[in-house]
Amino acid sequence: MNNWNIIGAGLCGSLLAIRMAQLGQEVNLYEKREDLRTVTLDAGRSINLALSSRGLKALDLVGARERALKLCIPMHGRMIHVPGQEPRLSKYSGRAGDYINSISRPGLNGLLLDIAEEFPNLNLHFKTQCTGVDVFTGDCVFSQEGVEITGKRGKLIGTDGAGSAVRKGLMANTTKLLFGYSQSFLTHGYKELRISPNADGSHKLFKNALHIWPKGKHMIIALPNLDGSFTVTMFHPYEGVVGFNTIKTEQDVMDMFEQEYPQLLDLIPDITQEYFANPVGTLGTIKCNPWQANNHTLIMGDAAHAIVPFYGQGMNASFEDVRVFSEHVATHGLENEALFTHFQTERMVDADAIADLAVDNFYEMQDKVADPIFIKKRVLEMKLEQMFEDYYSKYSLVTFRPEMRYSDAMRIGRAQDKLLLSICEDREVDDLDLNRVMNQLKAIS
Amino acid sequence: MNNWNIIGAGLCGSLLAIRMAQLGQEVNLYEKREDLRTVTLDAGRSINLALSSRGLKALDLVGARERALKLCIPMHGRMIHVPGQEPRLSKYSGRAGDYINSISRPGLNGLLLDIAEEFPNLNLHFKTQCTGVDVFTGDCVFSQEGVEITGKRGKLIGTDGAGSAVRKGLMANTTKLLFGYSQSFLTHGYKELRISPNADGSHKLFKNALHIWPKGKHMIIALPNLDGSFTVTMFHPYEGVVGFNTIKTEQDVMDMFEQEYPQLLDLIPDITQEYFANPVGTLGTIKCNPWQANNHTLIMGDAAHAIVPFYGQGMNASFEDVRVFSEHVATHGLENEALFTHFQTERMVDADAIADLAVDNFYEMQDKVADPIFIKKRVLEMKLEQMFEDYYSKYSLVTFRPEMRYSDAMRIGRAQDKLLLSICEDREVDDLDLNRVMNQLKAIS
Repeated sequence: MNNWNIIGAGLCGSLLAIRMAQLGQEVNLYEKREDLRTVTLDAGRSINLALSSRGLKALDLVGARERALKLCIPMHGRMIHVPGQEPRLSKYSGRAGDYINSISRPGLNGLLLDIAEEFPNLNLHFKTQCTGVDVFTGDCVFSQEGVEITGKRGKLIGTDGAGSAVRKGLMANTTKLLFGYSQSFLTHGYKELRISPNADGSHKLFKNALHIWPKGKHMIIALPNLDGSFTVTMFHPYEGVVGFNTIKTEQDVMDMFEQEYPQLLDLIPDITQEYFANPVGTLGTIKCNPWQANNHTLIMGDAAHAIVPFYGQGMNASFEDVRVFSEHVATHGLENEALFTHFQTERMVDADAIADLAVDNFYEMQDKVADPIFIKKRVLEMKLEQMFEDYYSKYSLVTFRPEMRYSDAMRIGRAQDKLLLSICEDREVDDLDLNRVMNQLKAIS
Repeated sequence: MNNWNIIGAGLCGSLLAIRMAQLGQEVNLYEKREDLRTVTLDAGRSINLALSSRGLKALDLVGARERALKLCIPMHGRMIHVPGQEPRLSKYSGRAGDYINSISRPGLNGLLLDIAEEFPNLNLHFKTQCTGVDVFTGDCVFSQEGVEITGKRGKLIGTDGAGSAVRKGLMANTTKLLFGYSQSFLTHGYKELRISPNADGSHKLFKNALHIWPKGKHMIIALPNLDGSFTVTMFHPYEGVVGFNTIKTEQDVMDMFEQEYPQLLDLIPDITQEYFANPVGTLGTIKCNPWQANNHTLIMGDAAHAIVPFYGQGMNASFEDVRVFSEHVATHGLENEALFTHFQTERMVDADAIADLAVDNFYEMQDKVADPIFIKKRVLEMKLEQMFEDYYSKYSLVTFRPEMRYSDAMRIGRAQDKLLLSICEDREVDDLDLNRVMNQLKAIS
């Protein structure tokens, strides 16, 4: 029984800890914050997430799918709000069983911590911050309420998010590891707001959709919560007329919403208070290479590959890391000297792919969802998915085909998009011979 | 008269300091090391550089061209060494006046420091390490022999190289600046060796060339020094049969040189001693964005854009930074609130271009210089340059056309390469109608 020190008890770290405990390993799971099940989180910070098939498949590993689904609200498509038009539901897939799920981050994280506590060989350490690592030996030290404690020698796994201390430990050895690293940011940030429930506790908008107000160069989305509220996220540039750096006064906020999102003024009566109470967050992508050192230290999840949220895949990708790692454990064995390298070699390609897809989707969501040719293409994709069991759009390949690698989904999905957009440019969907289109699509692989 | 605190008295910082002093500014130039004119540098570390027209054009700004040329050895081309063949000179250009210059880094840096000392408004501070910066105000503090001193308030310019403390100050404000950053490394490193002069002080190889021993996946180069020696640089992978991590014993060194570079065993009799005395350096590219904060702090040279050495443009690009900055000063004035932004906006595109060209040339130098089609293309390029005054190969555009931006040189040069390689694939140079080829080339712009 080896010891595994896992740094960060967020979604990825908690799931990995459970999995390693199931495999009979000794697991110490360290978290710098307090136990999120014991504190009331500030409403403005409790982001909800889209849990989809890749995440669910990883939860199957530890038998947590059903318990997680109880916390979920299914979302069958994007409800698109354009001024002067009825809201229009653009379904995610032509298959009824293909949908994504709105779930609260602390709710899901709490569930995983509950499961983790069921294992006698898994020790949880809250308010215990990692203050030093030796990535070549895996040695680590912590500060626990001001007292320095030393981790038991073992494997060191960093699942400590985009600001990862373990990744910084790798970067501190840049020359030895030839550590490649990149961080890049969109010129947009995000801010969360909230639509309260009706007096009777019901949702003010259609519950089973991800709502979007696309405005070309900026947008707002809203995801449903179990309590009848929606978590609303503004994605706006920092600069320019509607920029976070420009909107400074209550009047600025009112003017901007009246101009851009009049419907939301009705839905969020205390808009100015909400606006100024919540911070602006950055939207960044982090890539690095290697993810491991000396087969003693490994980073996973956002620590290794932070992505922007526009494909709803950040958490799903992190969960999938755990599944893929688990498969490498099954294939190579826990004692394999190159276990971490094997995992990294396979997984990095896919992490890069979903990072790039997520940035692409930012432009698609804010801009293309209101574009006539794009709308036509979505209609065509729906028809194809209804008619052909084995056809999956790019979105569906990424979201509903968990057995397909992200890198394959990207390659095939992009080729399909190119073909379908060219078809939709000069033809009406009703005039198309769908069997012929499907044959063209089948040539892509 | 404003105060300028320039951090780093290397090549870029020294030239910038001189220029700002010429413009009547108060300049404080800080260098953490001691004055390189007062110390004997370890031979193994005194890399020489290729000074070419972009660097010379920038030296013209401060009237230093002639004094620099006195330290130079002209190199008219690459002398290519292939076992069993006579060395072959591949000229850099078909024009006799187009050549590059081998110059010692400390020699050139010492010259610039000599010139800097001629200005009463320029203060040199050696052994003074920058220990803290506020990039938004430009405030900076230093440690000078253990005593903390504070920089006079003014503009803060980081010319402190690839490990820049000023860039780290920008990166520490990642969220505020949306600071994009990337570092990437080749899987090759480098090691310096030395070919001593003959007993009479003459060079053991043809003096006026850059010598290359290309071996496909690794190579050695040698540049002449004024004292009759050559500085030799091995570019080898870390891993594999000829890798730095594999070559561990004296016997390994001897075996590898006998197998790969037998000629160099004669030229460097003390090869094993040289080999183990000198360290292995990494070959990395650094890009970042922005280069400035609040128009108070700016980074330039390797601090902003470290590149690999395979185009001989690292120093030339850094000198050109100073020239371009100087032009922006002339255009916008020293008091312009967006001066640093104007400079950055123009220059970043070109820094990115030369970074990418330098990586490309790594593959060209070690691999393609011995490739028959590539050799044919070089012959064709030479003929074209001899016949047509206004034709410049990609290499010549980058190296001998200092008025053309790197980004333009890259775009045009790559298109020319593609055309000429396709022509050389199935035709002999002697059979070509050069006027026709030139007309095809003229269509590229």
